[in-house]
Amino acid sequence: MPDPLTLEVDLGERSYPIVIGSGLLAGGFDLSGYLTGKDCLVVSNETVAPLYFAALKRGLGDFIVHTIDLADGESFKTVASVESVVDRLVSSRANRDTTVIALGGGVVGDIAGFAAACYMRGVAFIQVPTTLLAQVDSSVGGKTGVNHPEGKNLIGAFHQPQLVLIDTDTLETLPDRELRAGLAEVIKHAAICDAEFFVWLETNMDALLAKDTKALAHAIKRSCEIKAAVVSEDEKEQGKRALLNFGHTFGHAIENCLGYGEWLHGEAVAAGMVMAAHLSGLGQEEVGRLRDLIVAAGLPVIAPAISADDLRAAMGMDKKVQNKALRFVLLKSIGEAFVTSKYTESRLNEVLLRADGRA
Amino acid sequence: MPDPLTLEVDLGERSYPIVIGSGLLAGGFDLSGYLTGKDCLVVSNETVAPLYFAALKRGLGDFIVHTIDLADGESFKTVASVESVVDRLVSSRANRDTTVIALGGGVVGDIAGFAAACYMRGVAFIQVPTTLLAQVDSSVGGKTGVNHPEGKNLIGAFHQPQLVLIDTDTLETLPDRELRAGLAEVIKHAAICDAEFFVWLETNMDALLAKDTKALAHAIKRSCEIKAAVVSEDEKEQGKRALLNFGHTFGHAIENCLGYGEWLHGEAVAAGMVMAAHLSGLGQEEVGRLRDLIVAAGLPVIAPAISADDLRAAMGMDKKVQNKALRFVLLKSIGEAFVTSKYTESRLNEVLLRADGRA
Repeated sequence: MPDPLTLEVDLGERSYPIVIGSGLLAGGFDLSGYLTGKDCLVVSNETVAPLYFAALKRGLGDFIVHTIDLADGESFKTVASVESVVDRLVSSRANRDTTVIALGGGVVGDIAGFAAACYMRGVAFIQVPTTLLAQVDSSVGGKTGVNHPEGKNLIGAFHQPQLVLIDTDTLETLPDRELRAGLAEVIKHAAICDAEFFVWLETNMDALLAKDTKALAHAIKRSCEIKAAVVSEDEKEQGKRALLNFGHTFGHAIENCLGYGEWLHGEAVAAGMVMAAHLSGLGQEEVGRLRDLIVAAGLPVIAPAISADDLRAAMGMDKKVQNKALRFVLLKSIGEAFVTSKYTESRLNEVLLRADGRA
Repeated sequence: MPDPLTLEVDLGERSYPIVIGSGLLAGGFDLSGYLTGKDCLVVSNETVAPLYFAALKRGLGDFIVHTIDLADGESFKTVASVESVVDRLVSSRANRDTTVIALGGGVVGDIAGFAAACYMRGVAFIQVPTTLLAQVDSSVGGKTGVNHPEGKNLIGAFHQPQLVLIDTDTLETLPDRELRAGLAEVIKHAAICDAEFFVWLETNMDALLAKDTKALAHAIKRSCEIKAAVVSEDEKEQGKRALLNFGHTFGHAIENCLGYGEWLHGEAVAAGMVMAAHLSGLGQEEVGRLRDLIVAAGLPVIAPAISADDLRAAMGMDKKVQNKALRFVLLKSIGEAFVTSKYTESRLNEVLLRADGRA
């Protein structure tokens, strides 16, 4: 197998590497240098653990390895799941030197990371993301947390991992629908700050959907580079990091209105990006390119049938809070995004009423 | 009223002031400069809110003020209480600019602070401690969190406040038992690093118990200075901050074995300090001075009847985990503490078997 590729997320004393490659788990990638104590807790789920836990464990050598497998799905991204991980840490007598390892998709990573952030006010954490979405997005940047019935990711912490280990082979077992959902965030990274990468995606979307190893590795690498660069500049989301929320204000509102789990996160973000492109006032051609690429990825470009009032409420814009300024990430052009609280109210209305093409 | 006294906790960009004085709440101390947005949530409890909320609110001027009153007591320091605060933040449509204000003792501060740390991955936080324990200890230093059935403060975060506002007048309504419990931490601060302050306490304990305003102000100020200095050097408890745990390894074990709420935290720490002094191998005279001061404060010097095995288990020392090193804070002399994992096993046995005087 080729040598893995390593990126560094530059966050001063909280810096950490992202290692990307094929065959890392099967090859028994040595994790020992990244663990602080003698024991670890591998948090996975009932779908992923049977596929990859045995391989991961080989890379843990003589460490004491405890495990917990969560139920699979976004609907389990709750405080209760975090409590179950904490209970497992307590029952395995974990201490401050224990390392929590997340083996799975974004839900597993977010829950495990938040548990690691809270247990004894913070223990070490390693991400082994096994979905494309987690590999290109949620495992990088230190955001952890769970959903509240009234909103996504309302409860959480910034907690940086010691290592993100991305084995592209895990995508072989990933359902196509989830692969496509991950591509939404890849498209987002290109749309907000890399026009050249956007062109590359227009050319290579078929290869990505066919799980071409080389194409996937490039897309993951470039996505992680973009996200790592943004996060390095703005760890706690005071400014530039907000750009990564392109499509997410609408996307989160869609997920919230539908109920978590109906649409995958990436699907909601895909439709949300088209809505944000419209709100940006981009020309027809650029909106068309974004929409076409999303369609090519097999993702929705039209929000589901939700009333504009419900979407507004989900965005925190109902009448009770009209005095609060809402900020959107908009596009100047494909490859250049900006954050603003200045948007055309009539255009927002139009976007909410018909999203795309439904007028 | 005299001008309030201000200390600065020096933590770089997370630095914040501690304002100590009499009549601060009654005088409508202006909080507006410490709030970031337009609204706040005052977290209090059913005992404290009726006494001080109206006064606090005057200092909040035109800010939108939401409230939640928790049940009173250590037994409510749970994840469920944090969730109720988060629910209240959600129902009041709090956003990232919202400030959480804790009005109450350590339990209120720990719950409110952890909720502030987790809500949207961190919102601003102000401490208005109304018990001596909270004023001299828990409100300073940024530790927040809640208990797990298997251990105290197992779930939490480091989250520094914008301000700690200490009104010594709130101690007028504090039950004597809680005043004494707070004095345990004052004695601890003297014991670990200020022999001169220890002598001052030996001289002034009666005045403190009589709630002499001037004596209380001095004790609070000196305690906050000591704690602030230690925290400034070691925010995340990698080293020196552990000194503040003098008496706490035993104290936590006592609380855990009795069940939270049976003994007050300060009472358990008081008995724990005597146990730690014995384990330190201090001479009879120094152990005697510590014990006498604790007795003078009306606090227990003897642990309750708990088996040595149960105490060991509560300290994480049962047979399953014998290979884990336990670290104790011991005294070289009164006024000088150190952290060590080297202790005399036979002496620990003796301490656990008879604590003090029960042999």
